[in-house]
Amino acid sequence: MRGVALGICPDATFVAITHEIVPQDIVGGALELAAAVKYFPAGTVFLAVVDPGVGSMRRAIAAEAGPYMFVAPDNGLLTMVFRQFAPARIVELTERAYALPAISRTFEGRDRFAPAAAWLAKGTPLTSLGQILTDWQKVDVPAPTMEGAQLAGVVVRVDRFGNLVTNIDRQTFDRLASSGAARIAIAYRHLISVVSTYAEVEPGALCALFGSTDHLEIAIAGGSAAERLGLTRGAPVVVRFDASA
Amino acid sequence: MRGVALGICPDATFVAITHEIVPQDIVGGALELAAAVKYFPAGTVFLAVVDPGVGSMRRAIAAEAGPYMFVAPDNGLLTMVFRQFAPARIVELTERAYALPAISRTFEGRDRFAPAAAWLAKGTPLTSLGQILTDWQKVDVPAPTMEGAQLAGVVVRVDRFGNLVTNIDRQTFDRLASSGAARIAIAYRHLISVVSTYAEVEPGALCALFGSTDHLEIAIAGGSAAERLGLTRGAPVVVRFDASA
Amino acid sequence: MRGVALGICPDATFVAITHEIVPQDIVGGALELAAAVKYFPAGTVFLAVVDPGVGSMRRAIAAEAGPYMFVAPDNGLLTMVFRQFAPARIVELTERAYALPAISRTFEGRDRFAPAAAWLAKGTPLTSLGQILTDWQKVDVPAPTMEGAQLAGVVVRVDRFGNLVTNIDRQTFDRLASSGAARIAIAYRHLISVVSTYAEVEPGALCALFGSTDHLEIAIAGGSAAERLGLTRGAPVVVRFDASA
Repeated sequence: MRGVALGICPDATFVAITHEIVPQDIVGGALELAAAVKYFPAGTVFLAVVDPGVGSMRRAIAAEAGPYMFVAPDNGLLTMVFRQFAPARIVELTERAYALPAISRTFEGRDRFAPAAAWLAKGTPLTSLGQILTDWQKVDVPAPTMEGAQLAGVVVRVDRFGNLVTNIDRQTFDRLASSGAARIAIAYRHLISVVSTYAEVEPGALCALFGSTDHLEIAIAGGSAAERLGLTRGAPVVVRFDASA
Repeated sequence: MRGVALGICPDATFVAITHEIVPQDIVGGALELAAAVKYFPAGTVFLAVVDPGVGSMRRAIAAEAGPYMFVAPDNGLLTMVFRQFAPARIVELTERAYALPAISRTFEGRDRFAPAAAWLAKGTPLTSLGQILTDWQKVDVPAPTMEGAQLAGVVVRVDRFGNLVTNIDRQTFDRLASSGAARIAIAYRHLISVVSTYAEVEPGALCALFGSTDHLEIAIAGGSAAERLGLTRGAPVVVRFDASA
Repeated sequence: MRGVALGICPDATFVAITHEIVPQDIVGGALELAAAVKYFPAGTVFLAVVDPGVGSMRRAIAAEAGPYMFVAPDNGLLTMVFRQFAPARIVELTERAYALPAISRTFEGRDRFAPAAAWLAKGTPLTSLGQILTDWQKVDVPAPTMEGAQLAGVVVRVDRFGNLVTNIDRQTFDRLASSGAARIAIAYRHLISVVSTYAEVEPGALCALFGSTDHLEIAIAGGSAAERLGLTRGAPVVVRFDASA
């Protein structure tokens, strides 16, 4: 893919955000991408491919959103990014002049996505790449729910350290935090408190803290929470705010 | 290696093709390299090292072939590339001025190959790097054999998705395809048909299709064929063309 | 981290030295960094993060040493580099103008180290980044000890091939080598000799040789010594020089 892009845009600088998304995991990719985007300079073109539907009839798209451009399969991978930066325009990649002459059904990343991203990086207007569309696919990334002084979420991602990243964001948490001290139940067991840094806990102890993406994470200082607890995506995480504490 | 190259050619752009070749697997490296080369712009210098003979007396070479340059150990790693692009000139890397002053016997990539590639990228003529040679090493990558309406090949590579990539290329396949519908036997069992995309099969189903390098692959949609079938390189794959179908 | 750095210094060229340091392994990181540094061009800014104390009160530092600049946590990660290149000046990263506005406690690499390295690469004077300090942390990397005609060392690192890299450097070895042929005992067993290249031993045979960093390594041609011997960091390695041989 980089070879193809360099042939079109020789001055491109490449940065890999991650190669650690589990194959087919669109939600994991959507979350990881959304966590990284705002740290890149304006004008960056993001090429994201997590693509269970490769070779099928799902569309390929490019978008302008905030100060950035995006190229991806139309399968919901941009859902979370578009919550942060509402897309100004989205096109379907239909113009064959901006793809390789032969498009392999099993490696569209190389034959369609990489050329499109490189042409955008080179300054080609978005609308040259295809027709504008408005009905793009979204994935359903669950939001945490509030019930009284209780916040119910789930693990949405396991990072490479084995931390269990939840869908509970700091803003929602802080809104309820005034109602008491937080106690966290993971998988309806493992009652723990929130700390603000690993340095506050003993090595090997289970803790909860807001990680680099400002979402509540279940972690073990110096270890893998996923492995120790035997939990993965979908595990329930409940925060109870206790006014008596 | 990149540090050394940057000291010689500060404007170099680096692209890693793959780090997933199994150590010592020259045939795997030769196939992967040959599949990638044509997607890079003219003038690219390829540095390839899969080197069971590091520290032995095997030679180090550089070559011009097609619009590209290559630097590699002389152990057959360029065999498949040279089938696509006949080498115009090959030299042995003997000129010490284009290597680091001290050449470690265990890290020639850093001390000999990287400097040579960087000098080529900087514009040094190939023949400055050493004497021309004509007797370069080849590895024996088997070709599929035809027997009547039957095509016998083998698995030559397992990719990172667990797909079993065979030595049966689309051209050879198409020549026989007119004689009937293809039925594929893997390891003399597992009779399957050829599809043109994963989207045609159920998730988890075994299928055969032409992959990104235009060779027949045995795959499982959303899974690892290598793991499921317990097969790896060398497994026989027979295509029977059935006129009655 | 690269996204942040590009926003500050768009012309930066990135080279990853390794992503294979075991989490929390400061000694392993210190050795790997020291082995690589001298191969990079003068003016290179090295950003190194192995950081068991992330989020604690350990300091963040930047340094000038030899023709290079360094950014790292103040936890001893630069110990071995500073043995090769005595630091001319070290500062604590306290100037908030050279960090991101919000510094996550769990991803200081992105929010503090990457911006500091990018500002240095862009030409910002070291002393703009914070106050000079003189009491930097060191880690204790053991030196080999000599007892008569015997040299006692330990395995300090396991590389990605499974080679057991010791703390016995070639210079120390050569000083004693004149007193006789070397016989090497690993974990007080496995008596082997030193070879100068893998090509001298049968595939699968255990051997000892000076590797790419000029330290004695225990290796298996075409295999993993760590796995075969069941040994890792800390395993004793004794060299006996035998005058009668």
